Amino acid sequence: MSAAISPLAPAAFPAMPPVPGVRLATAAAGIRYAGRTDVLLALFDRGTAVAGVFTRSKCPSAPVDWCRTRMRRGTARALVVNSGNANAFTGKSGKAATELTAEFAASAVDCEPNDVLLASTGVIGEPLDARKFGDVIDRLVDQAAPGGWDKAAQAIMTTDTFPKGAAAVVRLGASAATICGIAKGAGMIAPDMGTMLSFVFTDAPIAPAVLRGLLRRGVEDTFNAVTIDGDTSTSDTLLVFATGAAAARGVAKITSMTDQRLAAFRKGFDAVLGNLAEQVARDGEGARKLVEIIVEGARSKRSARRIALSIANSPLVKTAIAGEDANWGRVVMAVGKAGEPADRDRLSIWFNGIRVAHKGERDPDYDESAVSAAMKKSEITLKVALGLGKGRDRVLTCDLTKEYVAINGDYRS
Amino acid sequence: MSAAISPLAPAAFPAMPPVPGVRLATAAAGIRYAGRTDVLLALFDRGTAVAGVFTRSKCPSAPVDWCRTRMRRGTARALVVNSGNANAFTGKSGKAATELTAEFAASAVDCEPNDVLLASTGVIGEPLDARKFGDVIDRLVDQAAPGGWDKAAQAIMTTDTFPKGAAAVVRLGASAATICGIAKGAGMIAPDMGTMLSFVFTDAPIAPAVLRGLLRRGVEDTFNAVTIDGDTSTSDTLLVFATGAAAARGVAKITSMTDQRLAAFRKGFDAVLGNLAEQVARDGEGARKLVEIIVEGARSKRSARRIALSIANSPLVKTAIAGEDANWGRVVMAVGKAGEPADRDRLSIWFNGIRVAHKGERDPDYDESAVSAAMKKSEITLKVALGLGKGRDRVLTCDLTKEYVAINGDYRS
Repeated sequence: MSAAISPLAPAAFPAMPPVPGVRLATAAAGIRYAGRTDVLLALFDRGTAVAGVFTRSKCPSAPVDWCRTRMRRGTARALVVNSGNANAFTGKSGKAATELTAEFAASAVDCEPNDVLLASTGVIGEPLDARKFGDVIDRLVDQAAPGGWDKAAQAIMTTDTFPKGAAAVVRLGASAATICGIAKGAGMIAPDMGTMLSFVFTDAPIAPAVLRGLLRRGVEDTFNAVTIDGDTSTSDTLLVFATGAAAARGVAKITSMTDQRLAAFRKGFDAVLGNLAEQVARDGEGARKLVEIIVEGARSKRSARRIALSIANSPLVKTAIAGEDANWGRVVMAVGKAGEPADRDRLSIWFNGIRVAHKGERDPDYDESAVSAAMKKSEITLKVALGLGKGRDRVLTCDLTKEYVAINGDYRS
Repeated sequence: MSAAISPLAPAAFPAMPPVPGVRLATAAAGIRYAGRTDVLLALFDRGTAVAGVFTRSKCPSAPVDWCRTRMRRGTARALVVNSGNANAFTGKSGKAATELTAEFAASAVDCEPNDVLLASTGVIGEPLDARKFGDVIDRLVDQAAPGGWDKAAQAIMTTDTFPKGAAAVVRLGASAATICGIAKGAGMIAPDMGTMLSFVFTDAPIAPAVLRGLLRRGVEDTFNAVTIDGDTSTSDTLLVFATGAAAARGVAKITSMTDQRLAAFRKGFDAVLGNLAEQVARDGEGARKLVEIIVEGARSKRSARRIALSIANSPLVKTAIAGEDANWGRVVMAVGKAGEPADRDRLSIWFNGIRVAHKGERDPDYDESAVSAAMKKSEITLKVALGLGKGRDRVLTCDLTKEYVAINGDYRS
């Protein structure tokens, strides 16, 4: 694991207000390492709605299985998250561990086990000793209090080099609502200790079906548009909880996707998701540069996304950016291998606003020194224009450095 | 570029006999660097059949376009290959360069430009000055002679650390035929100087349609089953030439895929392709370990191939192998993200014959020290059994080391 904080990290953890209806507590349960917080408990007021999206892996972790089957209920009372052990590829004992954890929490909170949601992140294939949760759960329930987002974000970290949080306050008719989110992980990069988890909380009174709709749309251009190395974790989990506590301030419940008030809410919600997703890219293992890939002029948005991901996941493009080399030949290669419509002779490519290739050839005004200077920045925007249609998309990634290989090539520690 | 020879290189270039009907010559034309051979000319007797397979990139190089449109003719008299410049993403000037090169060769050889095939490998996006071929072509034609495979393989190298050749002598009815092949590149890894080229030559009298059939089948489990980093080059070209010179020894022409004599020929042909493909994997940039991925028990061979490629292209699996870590959690991850049918609870995984995971859990007999010792070998076989069906496949790759990042993260030299 890397000890140094990513050079792309935000200056500080943001100021985040409490979300009415949500209480948090953390503990050191010794899941894998002694003396570091590794359990987060979130408690929700009665009537809290929940929606979730999960890894598309065909080999998901036991907690992902647990949550997925409970999403139809649409409500939750508690969330238990641990770091240090992913409870993935743990067979029957893994399933038993999720059941035991939910029972501990349900008993302490006085709810149904089905009202408890779970997430685990850390090493794959090691049995998770769920009895450790039993040792700390009563204390967690007692200590749970509003706010404390920084400690919550810290408790769920694994290879992360900084805790990740984002918040927004949005108008909701005549009143307002708060949205707070935390995340961990470095996107798809999923070493022993990896995987992406994110939890978002709001006091807005939103029905589960609407929450699902918001999440499905919101995730598409945020978390689903981030890639570090194309490796999809077994545990990716994004849950959003709406306590509805704002109803006490006179906010009427939102029960339809056509509710006029959703426009403002959605803007804030998408901003929180986008902010967290960007922080995940900024903490990509070994990353020294944040890379935004913009593809325009594609046949469709979907086609633009595929081409952008082909570029973002190309080791040759990523190593070139690490080497501060505006190597557009590799970008052409990555466009060509994406399998999407592309016409070599219409392609144009920009690095940080400087056009390096135009209509299938090196730009006639190509100025090596100007491009070299632009490549030294810590944020790189790589734009590709295909000249075929109106499809446009954007993904975030980071560069591929020797440090990535070092972090992931060491023995499991 | 890496100067040191790959630790996985064969001990020496193999002894390879001349192929009747084929003459070779090389020259230093100063395409990119002075004082190194960078042009290969191969001359073929009249009536030589040819078949080819090419990159699936949507942005192919100009020579790929040139060859592809001439494959229907099914015959060839000359092949001109250069290293140092890929003539890719060079627009109209690139097309003009292919035309000029073919005209030079046609004039010197006394054939049609359409009888000349071309391949280029090296930097992308730099205009190729084809006049340089004009300076050396007459000398090349004069000097062309049987044999000299090592020099031919050397002339087409770019980031390769060793020349790649393989040969077979096969029975053809009562007589015999020779098959010789050379290759360059490190598979899909395609830095500025990269791309995979391979040329195979035989004196067997084989009709173009049969040659196409042999090539299409032969490439599937050889070159198409090798990946270094999943990056597909703009220039991948594999051409096979059959001079038919063995007809002079009384071998009747093979005009049908059902010809009984093809079984023996195909065995030798596939062996040459397989040998060359393995050498490409052995020269993967920065590689220290040759990795064979075997997937069995899949729903189909196609499904097994996809899962094997997902494992072979996973940066996390590749860095783990570089770190000599039998990290089967990452293998589970790569199986899960392949998008193919897989049942976590039936998965078993072996490293070099040692079962580390069984039926979705860590193997109960897992012995860390035995596995660690096995991972120190320079050749690693990673086997995954899915337990779903009879689909089986195998791909070759190499590990991902810091040296890969160093080679590809440096400025274009």
